[in-house]
Amino acid sequence: MSTQQAHPTLLIPGPIEVSDEVTQAMGRFAQSHVGMPFVNLFGETLTMLRDVFQTKNPASQPFVIAGSGTLGWDLVAANLVEPGEDVLVLHTGYFADSFADCFSIYGAKPTQLKAPIGQRPQHPEIEKALKEKKYKAITVTHVDTSTGVLSQIAALSELVHRVSPDTLFIVDGVCSIGAEELHFDDMKVDVALTASQKAIGCPPGLSIMMVSERAMDVFKNRKSPPGSYYASFKNWLPIMQNYEAKKPSYFATPPTQLVTALNAALKQLLTESMNTRFQRHKDISDRVKKAVGDMGLKQLASDPDNQAHAMTAMYLPEGLTPPEVLPKLLERGVIFAGGLHKEIATRYIRFGHMGVTVTNDQERKEVDKALKALKEVLDDVKKAKGQ
Amino acid sequence: MSTQQAHPTLLIPGPIEVSDEVTQAMGRFAQSHVGMPFVNLFGETLTMLRDVFQTKNPASQPFVIAGSGTLGWDLVAANLVEPGEDVLVLHTGYFADSFADCFSIYGAKPTQLKAPIGQRPQHPEIEKALKEKKYKAITVTHVDTSTGVLSQIAALSELVHRVSPDTLFIVDGVCSIGAEELHFDDMKVDVALTASQKAIGCPPGLSIMMVSERAMDVFKNRKSPPGSYYASFKNWLPIMQNYEAKKPSYFATPPTQLVTALNAALKQLLTESMNTRFQRHKDISDRVKKAVGDMGLKQLASDPDNQAHAMTAMYLPEGLTPPEVLPKLLERGVIFAGGLHKEIATRYIRFGHMGVTVTNDQERKEVDKALKALKEVLDDVKKAKGQ
Repeated sequence: MSTQQAHPTLLIPGPIEVSDEVTQAMGRFAQSHVGMPFVNLFGETLTMLRDVFQTKNPASQPFVIAGSGTLGWDLVAANLVEPGEDVLVLHTGYFADSFADCFSIYGAKPTQLKAPIGQRPQHPEIEKALKEKKYKAITVTHVDTSTGVLSQIAALSELVHRVSPDTLFIVDGVCSIGAEELHFDDMKVDVALTASQKAIGCPPGLSIMMVSERAMDVFKNRKSPPGSYYASFKNWLPIMQNYEAKKPSYFATPPTQLVTALNAALKQLLTESMNTRFQRHKDISDRVKKAVGDMGLKQLASDPDNQAHAMTAMYLPEGLTPPEVLPKLLERGVIFAGGLHKEIATRYIRFGHMGVTVTNDQERKEVDKALKALKEVLDDVKKAKGQ
Repeated sequence: MSTQQAHPTLLIPGPIEVSDEVTQAMGRFAQSHVGMPFVNLFGETLTMLRDVFQTKNPASQPFVIAGSGTLGWDLVAANLVEPGEDVLVLHTGYFADSFADCFSIYGAKPTQLKAPIGQRPQHPEIEKALKEKKYKAITVTHVDTSTGVLSQIAALSELVHRVSPDTLFIVDGVCSIGAEELHFDDMKVDVALTASQKAIGCPPGLSIMMVSERAMDVFKNRKSPPGSYYASFKNWLPIMQNYEAKKPSYFATPPTQLVTALNAALKQLLTESMNTRFQRHKDISDRVKKAVGDMGLKQLASDPDNQAHAMTAMYLPEGLTPPEVLPKLLERGVIFAGGLHKEIATRYIRFGHMGVTVTNDQERKEVDKALKALKEVLDDVKKAKGQ
């Protein structure tokens, strides 16, 4: 039986529902951030992240820092790119615009490659762009939470390493890590960044990142100091290394309860292989996409190759807006999200299917509940409009 | 009865013990960061902070952002000071060095005024410094967690406003807000920054700040853009204003459970007046300082005027080190902290007495338990050494 209070099921693309074990970990008593029980727990957490990201290289560096997922952009922009350097930002929605803004703040020069809504930049144009200029880094949003568009990390990595081998390959995996296929070593990723409240299944408040040996070398050979104090690898690297070596260390107080919850979430996550987990997310996604298709709803990402498995972003029937639909879903105990992409925000809704909702689908049955609620609401609205 | 598991009592200068209500709030179910239940709760939390900091000016601006207390330094340095501008940093221990480093990263020019360990810079030298150069801001650590030194905010503010009225008066209140006297309006403070895990009594993971109308005007009239993306007032100001107006808003996902816990902590905190709360911390502090004095222990801050009420930093008897004492305290169920000031870290220990430990002293009796444990340990050690 769940220890949690009854509540509407949270099926937005993050934060997501969390397991009872994670909830209990959040309510853990106060611990010293430099006492051995917490030091051991934090160290173990960092080591588990290596398995989640699938890296066997001991020189890959995990970071877990108090902050929202957004902090991950500062960590990249302030540490891995220097003022005046060019960055190629692949645009699949809201988040590329923000990541580009972040680069500009730290003095880098972002160039965005944009695609129409629901699509992603095509490889020939990416190849052309990479040949035109020397880019220090290229960024891709693995799952764009604003559009539900999935990028193809393996193929893109192959392209980048073939055409511009010195360019750092940076994956914004905020809505993907733990749900979508990502093999840090095999896909030659330099940075994969995420946040605790998405497919990893922990409450929000942690910026989580894996950085490759190559990218750490780029950092170590910087000519200018990092552009941030709080988001400086210089300040955090010894801390992460010490904690992972089970040695107390201090730069800023880590959020002990949140890290305890992350530890619980990762332990649950790693009870089965990452491939099994990715497959579960695919299976549920297929079910959702079939069902909403049967309801006559069109996805923003029309091409199945572009569709995320962690979430579904779908247009509402003509003339219907999120404020008409979302409250009716809530009446049925289901919370979806409205639109986020500025140009079409009033025309679509988003359904997140990640983490325990997916892995524990058999007991929780949240996906069926959501699909049933959505169908009822659409039918009701049609009826009310006399269609 | 406490709902928490049995655990050693955490009496370091933060994180601190938290109440059952706060613990339960941490274990709250997942909520949408833009759903009305959370929007209302976050808005109410921001408004309660006005009472905690004691500001009646509606143009004073509260910020609550996912991050460690350290993030507060970036918020100040990236938003309120521009590259090339001078800042006077009053040094009472470890934290001024770090704040000065932070200013340097964002291009400001910090000048530190240092005092011997256990003391604070004296007003005549501060006055002299302020007359020598035009300082954009002056910073003071209200309670230096590394030394237990208290600074006198009211008198210092009077001096700054008399001698250099355009200089922003910035109080690092990480270990003070909620325990030591601070009246934001009356003391003409421009920024008071803190963290959730100190005297406010919430788990770690939130940077909390109040900014004066005057300082917000300075921000709005910046010539250069803020030096950070994640720590940019430009990005956060509309979000904080919208939440407080009970309107959903998005820049980065707030840590919903931690904010829920902060809400619970502030509600408990505001059940009595701030002055009553400050007095409680003084009374307990007096008791602790008398007792450790009776044990023959000398404080780092030898002058009573310089002694914090939220904590006590005390030298161990000659020849004794924290690694000899702290494990014996832990055997007795009490966690103190070791030294943090680099020059003398191996010679002293720190005892935090804040929050529920102080306000609920009658039921919790943690202070007596700690003092008893400390006396036993010192007696044991003396006996073992044949003294």
